[in-house]
Amino acid sequence: MTKTTLTIAALLGFAGFASAETATTDALADVKFIIDNLWILISAALVFIMHLGFSALESGLCQKKNVVNVLFKNVFIICMGVLTYYFTGFNTHYPGDFNGFFSIGSPAGYDTADAAVVAASETKEYADYTYWADFIFQAMFAATAATIVSGAVAERVKLLPFMIYATILVGIGYPVAGSWHWGGGWLGSLSSGAFYDFAGSTVVHAFGGFAALAAIILLGARKGKYTEAGLKPILPHSLPLAAIGAFLLFFGWFGFNGGSVLSADPAAVSLVFTTTTLGAVGGGIGAIVISWILLRKPDLSMGLNGLLAGLVSITAGPDVITVPCSIIVGLIGGILVVVSVLFFDKIKIDDPVGAVSVHGVCGIWGTIALALPFFNGGRDDVSLVSQIIGVAAVGAFAFVFSFILTLIGKFTFGIRVSAEEEAEGLDVAEHGSPAYTD
Amino acid sequence: MTKTTLTIAALLGFAGFASAETATTDALADVKFIIDNLWILISAALVFIMHLGFSALESGLCQKKNVVNVLFKNVFIICMGVLTYYFTGFNTHYPGDFNGFFSIGSPAGYDTADAAVVAASETKEYADYTYWADFIFQAMFAATAATIVSGAVAERVKLLPFMIYATILVGIGYPVAGSWHWGGGWLGSLSSGAFYDFAGSTVVHAFGGFAALAAIILLGARKGKYTEAGLKPILPHSLPLAAIGAFLLFFGWFGFNGGSVLSADPAAVSLVFTTTTLGAVGGGIGAIVISWILLRKPDLSMGLNGLLAGLVSITAGPDVITVPCSIIVGLIGGILVVVSVLFFDKIKIDDPVGAVSVHGVCGIWGTIALALPFFNGGRDDVSLVSQIIGVAAVGAFAFVFSFILTLIGKFTFGIRVSAEEEAEGLDVAEHGSPAYTD
Amino acid sequence: MTKTTLTIAALLGFAGFASAETATTDALADVKFIIDNLWILISAALVFIMHLGFSALESGLCQKKNVVNVLFKNVFIICMGVLTYYFTGFNTHYPGDFNGFFSIGSPAGYDTADAAVVAASETKEYADYTYWADFIFQAMFAATAATIVSGAVAERVKLLPFMIYATILVGIGYPVAGSWHWGGGWLGSLSSGAFYDFAGSTVVHAFGGFAALAAIILLGARKGKYTEAGLKPILPHSLPLAAIGAFLLFFGWFGFNGGSVLSADPAAVSLVFTTTTLGAVGGGIGAIVISWILLRKPDLSMGLNGLLAGLVSITAGPDVITVPCSIIVGLIGGILVVVSVLFFDKIKIDDPVGAVSVHGVCGIWGTIALALPFFNGGRDDVSLVSQIIGVAAVGAFAFVFSFILTLIGKFTFGIRVSAEEEAEGLDVAEHGSPAYTD
Repeated sequence: MTKTTLTIAALLGFAGFASAETATTDALADVKFIIDNLWILISAALVFIMHLGFSALESGLCQKKNVVNVLFKNVFIICMGVLTYYFTGFNTHYPGDFNGFFSIGSPAGYDTADAAVVAASETKEYADYTYWADFIFQAMFAATAATIVSGAVAERVKLLPFMIYATILVGIGYPVAGSWHWGGGWLGSLSSGAFYDFAGSTVVHAFGGFAALAAIILLGARKGKYTEAGLKPILPHSLPLAAIGAFLLFFGWFGFNGGSVLSADPAAVSLVFTTTTLGAVGGGIGAIVISWILLRKPDLSMGLNGLLAGLVSITAGPDVITVPCSIIVGLIGGILVVVSVLFFDKIKIDDPVGAVSVHGVCGIWGTIALALPFFNGGRDDVSLVSQIIGVAAVGAFAFVFSFILTLIGKFTFGIRVSAEEEAEGLDVAEHGSPAYTD
Repeated sequence: MTKTTLTIAALLGFAGFASAETATTDALADVKFIIDNLWILISAALVFIMHLGFSALESGLCQKKNVVNVLFKNVFIICMGVLTYYFTGFNTHYPGDFNGFFSIGSPAGYDTADAAVVAASETKEYADYTYWADFIFQAMFAATAATIVSGAVAERVKLLPFMIYATILVGIGYPVAGSWHWGGGWLGSLSSGAFYDFAGSTVVHAFGGFAALAAIILLGARKGKYTEAGLKPILPHSLPLAAIGAFLLFFGWFGFNGGSVLSADPAAVSLVFTTTTLGAVGGGIGAIVISWILLRKPDLSMGLNGLLAGLVSITAGPDVITVPCSIIVGLIGGILVVVSVLFFDKIKIDDPVGAVSVHGVCGIWGTIALALPFFNGGRDDVSLVSQIIGVAAVGAFAFVFSFILTLIGKFTFGIRVSAEEEAEGLDVAEHGSPAYTD
Repeated sequence: MTKTTLTIAALLGFAGFASAETATTDALADVKFIIDNLWILISAALVFIMHLGFSALESGLCQKKNVVNVLFKNVFIICMGVLTYYFTGFNTHYPGDFNGFFSIGSPAGYDTADAAVVAASETKEYADYTYWADFIFQAMFAATAATIVSGAVAERVKLLPFMIYATILVGIGYPVAGSWHWGGGWLGSLSSGAFYDFAGSTVVHAFGGFAALAAIILLGARKGKYTEAGLKPILPHSLPLAAIGAFLLFFGWFGFNGGSVLSADPAAVSLVFTTTTLGAVGGGIGAIVISWILLRKPDLSMGLNGLLAGLVSITAGPDVITVPCSIIVGLIGGILVVVSVLFFDKIKIDDPVGAVSVHGVCGIWGTIALALPFFNGGRDDVSLVSQIIGVAAVGAFAFVFSFILTLIGKFTFGIRVSAEEEAEGLDVAEHGSPAYTD
């Protein structure tokens, strides 16, 4: 009797309960999925606004006569960057099974696949977010590589060759290098341990910085900057515009790093917001202090670059670093960027916006710092060897890829405007329109 | 015995379980409600920032001497737009039971109603969002219609008459036209099928564009633009400001279209973000390429207008279009806007910011495209007849409403500043203050 | 038998059900926690962008020759503000058990505590948000006090002394005053009833406004403004920049007020968004109308300050005020700010951006209005006596604290640049760099 009752209870109560429990668990997961997905989308919007940040920063730091040119390149880059990422970048970046080194992807989307795959791509079966949320978040990152180069080559590069260069860099170079780390490639299976780069200190920023370095070595300095009488600084045409840019980049970084948690996990996203902010303000203070010492004046553009230096530095591990360490890593990033900007001017490599220093040098620093005991809060699961391999591989690939592209451009179209055009300014010479009128 | 036990089990286990199940389902719905509501509010904030986008775009594209005037109008419009929407617009826009054509609403809110209604308006009984979330999201849209006109009439319109015009347009014209579609009006019950306009290609953008067209026809062109010697372009006074505006509009559009899902539904919002972005960048590329061909130079302001053209074009159906089609619809929008700007200059209708082309022409295009096989991804549930009826009805109403209002202004206050004021600039003439000082 | 069965059913069914119910309730709470926490973080990002808003507003309203100086101070303030808040501010602001008046805190974070505390600080055991979300949201507020002063002392203050002043104000003054209200201090246990200030009309804005007032009294007016021939207005150098600033402040205020709900509660956040917006636009209209009457011209900068005045005014109670009252409170704030700006010019207290009027005067107004029958929608739970005590205490403390600090500065470093530097402009004199070049 007891047994019978038990069975009935089990059938009606417990079993019914068990299936209801499953249903409840599933419904809860559905609701969590809505939040996680929403955060990825909001992050995509925040990363998008970084393109306005770059546009304002780069145009603010250049001369008045080249503003339209800088802005035009930025508008083109966001358009081209998202489109190439759609057509080939996304599936090159995340190729699924591949040889770990190289695989060119097909266009994003499942329109040709069967209905089941389409449906799954929009549910939590795919991930904590939908397929298209994944795509659009990553697409907003993709154009960044070219934007970094755009600032470095400003005020002297020929427009059309740059547009072709940027398209190939974003369409092929960036996602191939990224696939090594994020796409399941060889950097994840190093014998010294997996390479660690949370949101792209190396695979986004250092990639862009090293590509920029190769390009400006071949392109040469702007006329009149490095003279026989020494360095003649070319002043920014609008520091308010540059400040708008730096602040918007900082703002967008909450999505860049925060969204890279790939869910709205409270502990993780909260820590990332905190370390990202403290890294940035540490960088700002570091750059302000060191530039005041070295240049004997409180330098606004160094302060702005310090914020960005801190942000780039922290981007390798905002999820794993301790809060006090985030300040130190940012601070050193801020010091490094000033020293680096002065160094590149010393060796006469002309980078109008400091892109190589901000993204290249600080990208390396942040990535390596994660494996240095004092700076990473005492963790021992990030291998210094792997970090060095990762930085070296991505940096070298970006440099060589960009160098070859630029060299081809140099011997075909030419990559540099004429001396007359440079003197006149690219806005009127190439675009027939000044940035400002009275 | 078994039966008795069963009854007890049912009472204690199953029945208890059933009510608990209901409670769980309800609690889950409550949590989902929190997310959906939050997304509507975040979207409202994003749509708000579009007003800064419009302010920057319109002031950047006008002459230096009229910047204060443009900005003043924009500040007034957001203030007046939200207030009129509160006092009458919201309940005119969403009148509940009405004749399908016209109903002037009372102020928003339930302060005079009973407690039960007040409570319901803040719970999921109302919708996936609260009453006030609904109101504030829609209120941010409302002023857009006047902002579009504001750009078109810039640099020559008299301030006070414009302020009155804008108040009537936003307070009555916009919500009446909107009620036809979103408020349960006649466009939803066409015999050819319901008119489809997801986030307002027609009922927001084309409405504004056609109102602008009527106003500038009566207002006339700025002095000195269409001369006997041909067109003398009046150059934008600050392209960086215009670029800030266009990028912020793009940013805000994630709320405009994304929030129009009216929930945080993952599949829907993710698709909307993706198609909105691809439409925009398609528009940017389309405008860059066609203007380069037609004008023989890479034109920044055309590129910026191309982004907006793509955004307006995609706004009719970002939730139903396929991803590849979103690129094509945006691309054609980008081409159309350039051709349209050149066309209106040809027929000497002076639109300083291209508002009629961006919002009017591309609003039509996007709405119609949804019913064209090649452009809508093969769906057959949107009727071409209904789309044409909707565009024609809203466009004609906006044009006639605006034409009559402007005409009344013309024969009462006058709508155009004197030739001296126009030459001197409206900033000093009307506001006693230049936009910039040295 | 029945009894036995019942026991078994209870053990297997009911008890199992009870524990499952607990598990479900807990899982639901976990999901709600994710949303609430995410909203606090997004709000932190929105409050961050207010620092760009302040930067743009203040630099736009000052003269061209002092723009770099203003921006440099703003960059420094966000860096220093977050860092001091980390090192001492957060635990001074929220000291836990203390005497209700004063307690200097240790650095934020639990790195030295045991694992259980660390874990709890990142779960819903802590609050509706994690420890670090709490920290970063509050940290973004903290620097605001110094930013308000920064605008008021612009164009004549010595840089380094201001930096020291700002550090002490944000590191000690602001969190001490805040602890009286938000940290469990004496303003919460007044015999007349608890002081009510939702998001900081008094403890953020009036604090900053009164600190600014003390500083500019000691600092004196800019040369050439108050002459024997009467007031010679010093015009803003870029009203578009100021407009960008005001709109971004408005945008960020959705996080400032909306995030202060401290959860994503739909009814509360929706109401806060609505009353915040209506307060702002009420303020804009109020300022536009009154300045048009008093100054006989439509004044853009008054319109912008009107938006901010409305926002500051509504910040004391956007969660409890009725919607119609929010319009009235904002409207009066907008009128007050214009009258106040004219008044301070009358008594020759020079405030280049109107910071004392916007933040000080409207902060008082908004706080007091909550206890005035006509303006608070009829509630009787806010004590007028307590509101006056709170405003007076915080205002007096801010004034005296700032006065003493400024006085010390005056008799040690000196607080004012030389007449030559002021005439030349601080950008070149102190920073060696103009804001704009041709």
